[in-house]
Amino acid sequence: MEPKTPAQSRTILTDLVLPSETNPLNNLFGGELLARMDRAASIAARRHSRRIVVTASVNHVAFNRAVPVGSVVTVDAAVSRAFSSSMEIFIDVWIEDRYSGERTKANEAIYTFVAVDDTGKPTKVPEIRPETDLEKERYAAALRRKQLSLVLAGKMDPSQATELKALFMG
Amino acid sequence: MEPKTPAQSRTILTDLVLPSETNPLNNLFGGELLARMDRAASIAARRHSRRIVVTASVNHVAFNRAVPVGSVVTVDAAVSRAFSSSMEIFIDVWIEDRYSGERTKANEAIYTFVAVDDTGKPTKVPEIRPETDLEKERYAAALRRKQLSLVLAGKMDPSQATELKALFMG
Amino acid sequence: MEPKTPAQSRTILTDLVLPSETNPLNNLFGGELLARMDRAASIAARRHSRRIVVTASVNHVAFNRAVPVGSVVTVDAAVSRAFSSSMEIFIDVWIEDRYSGERTKANEAIYTFVAVDDTGKPTKVPEIRPETDLEKERYAAALRRKQLSLVLAGKMDPSQATELKALFMG
Amino acid sequence: MEPKTPAQSRTILTDLVLPSETNPLNNLFGGELLARMDRAASIAARRHSRRIVVTASVNHVAFNRAVPVGSVVTVDAAVSRAFSSSMEIFIDVWIEDRYSGERTKANEAIYTFVAVDDTGKPTKVPEIRPETDLEKERYAAALRRKQLSLVLAGKMDPSQATELKALFMG
Amino acid sequence: MEPKTPAQSRTILTDLVLPSETNPLNNLFGGELLARMDRAASIAARRHSRRIVVTASVNHVAFNRAVPVGSVVTVDAAVSRAFSSSMEIFIDVWIEDRYSGERTKANEAIYTFVAVDDTGKPTKVPEIRPETDLEKERYAAALRRKQLSLVLAGKMDPSQATELKALFMG
Amino acid sequence: MEPKTPAQSRTILTDLVLPSETNPLNNLFGGELLARMDRAASIAARRHSRRIVVTASVNHVAFNRAVPVGSVVTVDAAVSRAFSSSMEIFIDVWIEDRYSGERTKANEAIYTFVAVDDTGKPTKVPEIRPETDLEKERYAAALRRKQLSLVLAGKMDPSQATELKALFMG
Repeated sequence: MEPKTPAQSRTILTDLVLPSETNPLNNLFGGELLARMDRAASIAARRHSRRIVVTASVNHVAFNRAVPVGSVVTVDAAVSRAFSSSMEIFIDVWIEDRYSGERTKANEAIYTFVAVDDTGKPTKVPEIRPETDLEKERYAAALRRKQLSLVLAGKMDPSQATELKALFMG
Repeated sequence: MEPKTPAQSRTILTDLVLPSETNPLNNLFGGELLARMDRAASIAARRHSRRIVVTASVNHVAFNRAVPVGSVVTVDAAVSRAFSSSMEIFIDVWIEDRYSGERTKANEAIYTFVAVDDTGKPTKVPEIRPETDLEKERYAAALRRKQLSLVLAGKMDPSQATELKALFMG
Repeated sequence: MEPKTPAQSRTILTDLVLPSETNPLNNLFGGELLARMDRAASIAARRHSRRIVVTASVNHVAFNRAVPVGSVVTVDAAVSRAFSSSMEIFIDVWIEDRYSGERTKANEAIYTFVAVDDTGKPTKVPEIRPETDLEKERYAAALRRKQLSLVLAGKMDPSQATELKALFMG
Repeated sequence: MEPKTPAQSRTILTDLVLPSETNPLNNLFGGELLARMDRAASIAARRHSRRIVVTASVNHVAFNRAVPVGSVVTVDAAVSRAFSSSMEIFIDVWIEDRYSGERTKANEAIYTFVAVDDTGKPTKVPEIRPETDLEKERYAAALRRKQLSLVLAGKMDPSQATELKALFMG
Repeated sequence: MEPKTPAQSRTILTDLVLPSETNPLNNLFGGELLARMDRAASIAARRHSRRIVVTASVNHVAFNRAVPVGSVVTVDAAVSRAFSSSMEIFIDVWIEDRYSGERTKANEAIYTFVAVDDTGKPTKVPEIRPETDLEKERYAAALRRKQLSLVLAGKMDPSQATELKALFMG
Repeated sequence: MEPKTPAQSRTILTDLVLPSETNPLNNLFGGELLARMDRAASIAARRHSRRIVVTASVNHVAFNRAVPVGSVVTVDAAVSRAFSSSMEIFIDVWIEDRYSGERTKANEAIYTFVAVDDTGKPTKVPEIRPETDLEKERYAAALRRKQLSLVLAGKMDPSQATELKALFMG
């Protein structure tokens, strides 16, 4: 399988925040944003793999900025790295001001999807060949995140997590 | 403010998996489960704090088991630890077999909520006093997770993350 | 088939009242509450019978208290009595005050479900063995309700409805 | 206030049964039908009273016929009798066969609504003047149902429920 | 196949405007009204043809009046003319004032549906025999609209569009 | 006000076709696609005008290709021409094949939106300066469509519709 670039799986989902999706402060519910990001990420994973894909995990997601009702929200997702049958998808969420048109970063998230065949069995996916500086940085960090996830799940010995160890031992 | 136990915020949301909530393999969409967990966690955070609460972050969530259409899913959430104005909510998700009635753990997730006043400003919440062994274990691990989150966000120097450092240095 | 207790089918569905579910007075629509109770009751009926279950009837439901937007609503359902292939499910609905945390009874409802096989044919279900005083009282009243339902449907002669007759003749 | 006829409040809601509204047998969920009937009944109550209206109670509803996915369902509601500030709405539900076009009665239901002012206080509504034989029959039966409801709620002594007593004493 | 009248396919969908269906001015979203009209029109097309029907096109729809939240909206659809396997459906949308009960025309729309068999292949439908003056006028205009649609799609030479040409050449 | 290019208002909404959005042939409901296009078009109109916008009309929309369940649908909208306070939005809809990744045009649609102030009064919007050949072609055709719309609404004498007249008179 030939490698693909993040641009080939990039997926943009621009939509409004409707009144039915807001909390008592009239801001978008965290849960609704998580669901939108999952749909955009699943399309990116599918564009990369051309397979059925299922959510495998959600990495740390920080909600740094409230998203008020009536906002235009852009969810921008692309595969940042692939590991055999799994794909890490990096998601940037933007909101824009109605009057100035200015775009602000609302938050970032990282989801992992697995490509499966019709019986649900994992199946191989193409590798990622990052192009821009940002894509290269995210590609490198993806390995660190994978080690962290394996250590936390008890599936990798911390001493083997070379990338991660460096971070804490300086 | 008097401390509260996890039992005082425990929230149970039992519901069906409807056909409109499933992916091409006829299993519950990851995004829909993330949204249900967010709602249950927000109620637990509100029961603990008796304030308006907003999602601050979602920690690593692993989707270990597919949840087929028609399943009964139980989302069981409780505050595991409180830090000033933020609360960590630990969520267990169970599915049950229609014929045997047997319950299986589908996945675990950890969300963080912040209590705010009517203007959106963070406000103090009661501490947690864990009671059972499982509650005590989750209470202790919450500190480790908080340090990890601060390190990853660049808000804490790795060398100060004493709990975490021990994990990698043995 | 061995009898089961109401506790074995008890189902709790705690959820928020979202803005999209309210009437012009900003209270939960009756229809939305009827739908939530139907889902919780169907899970209770399924836990009791371990079969496919379908709604057979809804008994008198009184909406005594308005449920304002943003409320936490707990629907608490359990099988109160079983008759051959049908099950009466008794449902208590509670709302809680955000500030005091106090729970108030919002209303009660009684639904009847029938257990069916894959072709839709009714199939036998276990009997109920009530344990608490409240469960025993509801178990006894269920027979009166069944007679009333048969009389109103013209399927039982009023003179045979011994339980009911006593009520009106003193 | 001048009396109105049932025809003046008659409300017809014809709609499809969508896949997302069905149970594991591919028939319309009871809860979804209850919600549709509530919406149609609330419009009928509003047309009669020209006020804000809220669901007060749902009388016995029997689900006699399954309604398969893809069906056209017609909910036909009209006020059958008014009592001071409350209105009884009688609802007929029809489904039609795609090929023959034949209409079949799926079920009947009776809802009670109360008209309120902007503060939620009950307010008087016009009386009903039935015209057809069926309307007259439903008008008469409404009094019996009201007595039954009051007796079951413990708000009327059974010996005063003259209409009802006649039914059981012959 | 025997011709049918518009009355035989007439479909009425009366429903409320819920808060979740409104724009920042608290009026019904255009898109939600388009979807309701599509459902009502599809039922009318099905009643006329007794076949599976699919939306083929939407003609010019003007939104002349805003529809505020809480309104009662009546979508009234009927087949206005049939051409081999396609049907033109004319839709009138009414809103009514809560206090006076007065009905106002909110807008009109014209949809075209095609009847298909189980494999999706177009299949013949009965002709329309208009009865009232309005039905006759709409029946005549339908031919003009069909020609316009063919000209705009480049499937008919403008010089052949006799009905339409007359309009512009006087 | 400075003119803007279509690129400045371009809005992309990529999303899945969920099972709850399909007709009996398992294809996307026309009504659901109309609603998605309305949302994307409203965002484009808002990006161009930086005002509240409301749907004014929908021009002829042809559904040339069925969109099967599970498809990825991309709605791509941009303002094609502005007239005082109204904006014509041209929408292209694409679907892509899961296996080959090939994109196919599913249909085109044209919506008109009006920019309004907080009281709902129409307000001026910037002009459009088309850049690409396709944008220039759509810009020119927009005038023809506007004349047609005015003639059909009886607001312009056909003899004044110079652009349109040329079409039919050769």
